Amino acid sequence: MKYDNRFLSIDFETGGLPDALKKQAVFEVAVTEIGIAVIDIEKLEIIDKYSCLFKPYADDLIYQPKALEVSNISIDLLEKKGLEMKVAFEQISNFVSKHFIGKKKPKIVGHNIIGFDMDFVQNLWELNKASIDKYFDIVDIWDTMLMARLKYVDGSMSLPSVIERLSLENKQAHRALQDAMITAEVFINFVKSLRGDGIASKKEKRFRENFQF
Amino acid sequence: MKYDNRFLSIDFETGGLPDALKKQAVFEVAVTEIGIAVIDIEKLEIIDKYSCLFKPYADDLIYQPKALEVSNISIDLLEKKGLEMKVAFEQISNFVSKHFIGKKKPKIVGHNIIGFDMDFVQNLWELNKASIDKYFDIVDIWDTMLMARLKYVDGSMSLPSVIERLSLENKQAHRALQDAMITAEVFINFVKSLRGDGIASKKEKRFRENFQF
Repeated sequence: MKYDNRFLSIDFETGGLPDALKKQAVFEVAVTEIGIAVIDIEKLEIIDKYSCLFKPYADDLIYQPKALEVSNISIDLLEKKGLEMKVAFEQISNFVSKHFIGKKKPKIVGHNIIGFDMDFVQNLWELNKASIDKYFDIVDIWDTMLMARLKYVDGSMSLPSVIERLSLENKQAHRALQDAMITAEVFINFVKSLRGDGIASKKEKRFRENFQF
Repeated sequence: MKYDNRFLSIDFETGGLPDALKKQAVFEVAVTEIGIAVIDIEKLEIIDKYSCLFKPYADDLIYQPKALEVSNISIDLLEKKGLEMKVAFEQISNFVSKHFIGKKKPKIVGHNIIGFDMDFVQNLWELNKASIDKYFDIVDIWDTMLMARLKYVDGSMSLPSVIERLSLENKQAHRALQDAMITAEVFINFVKSLRGDGIASKKEKRFRENFQF
C-alpha cells in the first residue's frame, strides 16, 4: 500500500486564545490569517503553499490588541488586504482539494495543532457549512510539538525553541505562512530522523553496489 | 516542563473484528486477552508488564473460531484461566493507576491502536462504568502503524512486517502480552531514531571531551 497522502502544515494567526478567553475559535475569537505549506511525504519536500488574511467577517469578533501585536497584523491591514470570509474559504477549500491524490485526502500537521489550531480548522469549516471529513483525513493528525516532546523529553517545546534545537532558521516568526513553512521543515526533519536507518541502508547498498569485486 | 508521562503499549486478543462484523467491541465482540507493556519515555526501557485472560463475561458474545485460532486461545482456556470481568478490570485499572507519575496519566501506544484496539480500550472502560479520561491522557495516542507509514512510506505496515524491517525478534506473535511488548520495542526504536541527533551529539561531545589538547 503506497502512502501518497499529502501533509498540510497549517498555522493560524488569531485575535486571541479561545481556551484562555473561554470563547469559541472562529465564531467568537477572530481568525486573522491562515498559512498552509504542503509536504510531499515521499520526497519530504515542501511543494506548495497558500496564505491569506481575513477581513473582519462578523460583528463582535474578539481581536485582542496583544494578539494582533504578536502577529503584527492590524485591523487596518485586515480591512485593506483581507479577503471576505466566503472568498477566503473558497480559496482555502479549493487549495486543499487540489492536494488530494486520487481519493486520498491530505493529512494535517501543525505545531500545537491538537491543543490550538485544530479548533480553528474545525470551526472554519463549520462556519462555512462544510464537512471537514470530506477535505481531510483526520484519523491521524501530526503535532510537531508532541513529536518534539518524544524527541527532547524536557525543556521548552515552543516552535522557536524547537527551531533553535534543530538549528533551523526562522526568518519571520509569528506570521501564519512562515510558521506553517517552518513547522513543515520541523516535521520533515523529524520524519527524516525516523527514516534514518532506511537512508543509511540505501547508502550502504549503493556503496556495496559500487564496490563489487 | 519535564515529560514524565509513562507510555502503555496495549494489545488485545479478541473474538473477531468489530468493523468487519459491524458489531461493538467488548459489548458484542468478546475481548479474550489484554497485554500491557509499560515504557519509561526518558530511559526508553520497558519497566513493567501486565496480562490476563477474560472468562466469558456475558451471553451471546461473539467468539469467531478463526479469531480464536489466530491467538491460539480456546473457550476452554478462557473458562479455566480467565478472570471474571470485574476482577480483570480491577487489576487492569489498578495497574494503569500504578503508572501515574504524580497527576500525570499514562499515554497509550499500540500497533493499529487507532484503527482497532482503542475501541476495545474505550468499551472496556465503558462496560465497567469507568471514565477513560481519568486513567489515560488521550490527547495524543501513538500508533506505531501510522509511525511506520511515515518511516517506510510503502509496503506492509503489519506488526510482523515492521518487526522484520527493524530486524527485531518476535518470539510468540499473536498473544496479547508478546504483541504489546514487541510493539513497545518498535515504539522505542522509532523514538530512538527521532532522538538520533541527540545521541550523535552526545557521542560527539564525549569524543571531544576525551580528545582535548
